[in-house]
Amino acid sequence: MRNKKVAGPGKVAKSVDVVVVGSIGLDTIETPFERHADLLGGSVSYACAAASFFTSVGMVGIVGTDFPEKFMKLYRSFGIELSGLAAVPGKTFRWSGVYDQDMINRRTLATELNVFETFSPELPEAYREAPFVMLGNISPALQLKVIDQIRRPRFVVADTMDLWIDIARADLMNVIKRVDLLMLNDGEARQLTGLHGLRQCAEKILQWGPSHVVIKKGEHGSMLVSRNGVFLLGAYPIHTVKDPTGAGDCFAGGFIGHLAAAGRVGETAVREALLHGSVVASFGVEDFSLNRLAGLGRRDITRRVGEFRRMIIV
Amino acid sequence: MRNKKVAGPGKVAKSVDVVVVGSIGLDTIETPFERHADLLGGSVSYACAAASFFTSVGMVGIVGTDFPEKFMKLYRSFGIELSGLAAVPGKTFRWSGVYDQDMINRRTLATELNVFETFSPELPEAYREAPFVMLGNISPALQLKVIDQIRRPRFVVADTMDLWIDIARADLMNVIKRVDLLMLNDGEARQLTGLHGLRQCAEKILQWGPSHVVIKKGEHGSMLVSRNGVFLLGAYPIHTVKDPTGAGDCFAGGFIGHLAAAGRVGETAVREALLHGSVVASFGVEDFSLNRLAGLGRRDITRRVGEFRRMIIV
Repeated sequence: MRNKKVAGPGKVAKSVDVVVVGSIGLDTIETPFERHADLLGGSVSYACAAASFFTSVGMVGIVGTDFPEKFMKLYRSFGIELSGLAAVPGKTFRWSGVYDQDMINRRTLATELNVFETFSPELPEAYREAPFVMLGNISPALQLKVIDQIRRPRFVVADTMDLWIDIARADLMNVIKRVDLLMLNDGEARQLTGLHGLRQCAEKILQWGPSHVVIKKGEHGSMLVSRNGVFLLGAYPIHTVKDPTGAGDCFAGGFIGHLAAAGRVGETAVREALLHGSVVASFGVEDFSLNRLAGLGRRDITRRVGEFRRMIIV
Repeated sequence: MRNKKVAGPGKVAKSVDVVVVGSIGLDTIETPFERHADLLGGSVSYACAAASFFTSVGMVGIVGTDFPEKFMKLYRSFGIELSGLAAVPGKTFRWSGVYDQDMINRRTLATELNVFETFSPELPEAYREAPFVMLGNISPALQLKVIDQIRRPRFVVADTMDLWIDIARADLMNVIKRVDLLMLNDGEARQLTGLHGLRQCAEKILQWGPSHVVIKKGEHGSMLVSRNGVFLLGAYPIHTVKDPTGAGDCFAGGFIGHLAAAGRVGETAVREALLHGSVVASFGVEDFSLNRLAGLGRRDITRRVGEFRRMIIV
């Protein structure tokens, strides 16, 4: 099927520095304290919003005709380029989950793929020259389709999840071969490599192709391993985590956005970008959906980056 | 009962910069890979050895007449002052435990208090002028006895554990009131305060008196909270953890030793001392008991501190 683009014929899409692909969902989320239905969610929503603080970002995703116009407006308020967002007949992807008391572990209550089942990312011409690419958590086969359409990628980041390690390992290995940075959480790193120590997990993955591996550890921060060694980054301690959904996507989006804005991909630029991604993620979890990011200015980020720096300097 | 001192009458004890009190045990430890019996263990063994790399340290502890001479020799090889070590008729404290596959969670198989039941720390005159004190994990009542004997303490650190939070909270609160830094792990911080966020836990404890709280998170590093704010420190990623026993004691001992050597207790000195304590702990877990520390030189520590610094600098 050929997806109808939201930008529509005749509208000229802007070129972008960063292309992000991923899921778009209407989420119903329950924490020990609150429950909210029909929230804007999905990896590409979080990652694009996060990247938008630093650079121009183009979204690649799919929604159904039930997708609320208010969420389109919200995307536009972040300045996200939407010519790669397909709106097709049918219902938008839906997910619902419930968080444990610890606000970390969660259980999926329901997943309705809906139009997401038909998703075949097709990049607008204006996206294909983008040097920075973030492959959000979708099937590795779809991630490969996106890489194939980028003409001169300079730095490609991929996220993944336990499901793809289980059921699509061969495709995932192809993705890993072709990206500059693989981002995954600690459990996934162990599952993927069969090793326990996180540094060993990362070093194993480096052998498969990427020049960088970032292992996310939630409230414990993250670890970057590259040919330049190891970088350990804590997580900014949040006073009240309202909803951890999308934290990893905000981290990845903020990271790629900051890297693109810097225009450099050396060790220092990568560390700085991780610091900024981490700070954007720390704001993201302070409220549900994109609510906290929507009210956020670049100055808020700069202030917290300064505060965070003082927390990690010896 | 009056404890017979090892130094014996007539032998003049040296004054020390750091006094450390805690348990001395003969440990039997099983990991998924190895099992070793009758190892030298106990909080004061680890903490004194760790502190000894940086400054002069005096041990306060108790052993039975079965305590092997080779372990006394080992203590002496670290240059630890032993005039506060009581050797009394009876058997030395014994502990045995088994680690899970993750090398983090452990189960106690057996505890024999033996002579430890009669322990009443009595500090040699030469210890009482020590400016730096580390109260290792023993009952808060005994920790208080030690504080009472120090004439002009400049910086006192206390460690604790879940057991004392459960059964000796009132005494523990008195310890907390009187120390400069409370060190405890994440689970204990939550248990003690009834709060979940670690920063909030630490801020609550600060209200009870100490100027610093350090929350240990094992392989995820640690968090210092003081009136100067928050300091987040990762953990040096070890290639092979052979035995995590005593890691927290090495961290605390290396910390107080480095702080004493620096002779300053400001924010930078405290952060530097945590960095050094963390590095000593990273060596400690590379082998059972004090085996790795015994073969270690100051130069090895300096080298790894340099490597660690490069891992945490943005």
